[in-house]
Amino acid sequence: MELSPDWVVGFTDGEGCFYIGIYRHPEMSVGYQVLPEFRIVQHKRDVQLLHAIKRFFKCGVIRVNRDDRMELRIRKLECLRMVVDFFQKHPLKTKKNVDFRKFAKVIRWMGKGKHLNTDGVIEIAKIALETNTGNHVEIEKIITELKSG
Amino acid sequence: MELSPDWVVGFTDGEGCFYIGIYRHPEMSVGYQVLPEFRIVQHKRDVQLLHAIKRFFKCGVIRVNRDDRMELRIRKLECLRMVVDFFQKHPLKTKKNVDFRKFAKVIRWMGKGKHLNTDGVIEIAKIALETNTGNHVEIEKIITELKSG
Repeated sequence: MELSPDWVVGFTDGEGCFYIGIYRHPEMSVGYQVLPEFRIVQHKRDVQLLHAIKRFFKCGVIRVNRDDRMELRIRKLECLRMVVDFFQKHPLKTKKNVDFRKFAKVIRWMGKGKHLNTDGVIEIAKIALETNTGNHVEIEKIITELKSG
Repeated sequence: MELSPDWVVGFTDGEGCFYIGIYRHPEMSVGYQVLPEFRIVQHKRDVQLLHAIKRFFKCGVIRVNRDDRMELRIRKLECLRMVVDFFQKHPLKTKKNVDFRKFAKVIRWMGKGKHLNTDGVIEIAKIALETNTGNHVEIEKIITELKSG
């Protein structure tokens, strides 16, 4: 199945998710891990399409999301850079583009190692709070911990 | 906002719905109305995009769906014929295309007046039962009524 860039943009406008995950991770020096991901969830009947999108980006992992839903998940930083490049060249048309731009900023920051110090993680966590996805209550807690830590 | 055909296909693969509605309608000679519609629902923050899709198809009505959701709804038969032509030239890539083909069949049948006699409505209702959308329990009831009427 051959996908065009415009189709991928339209489908992502509908089904894609740019997620900035932040997790407690005692083994990391800063104590927290920033884990952004690009994700598309579909009913398992359309898993072939997830494979086609994976081939399109030459990146990602197909896995069970929950129940009869599958997801394509892209987490590798070099892959996310490519994804960001793509959606900068081919902009989303929904307001999801606002979240995407924040996500892109975090990916750039991570390229500079900003996620490896406390102030950087706080800044990233604040960006995550401005997006439409994620567990905002949990992120608020993490920011409090980071500030008091 | 300018939309390309491929973007519209991708977005419809994610967010579009081809719905074959069948309703009791005592004022119609057959007693039932077949009311197919093409629908895209979005959060109201993206209502501008629904307007762009309406301009793309030169058809449809923008209305409140529920709560903070808006929808573009296309119901006019001549408009649905255009929509069907479009998605025949630019096929959907998800399994939604299976539903679309059944929907397209119903639109063709309606062009021949099949929805205006009892046997035709039964056939259309059976097609509706094969799709992933709609109230199947209600349609089963309507088929029973039509067969016994």
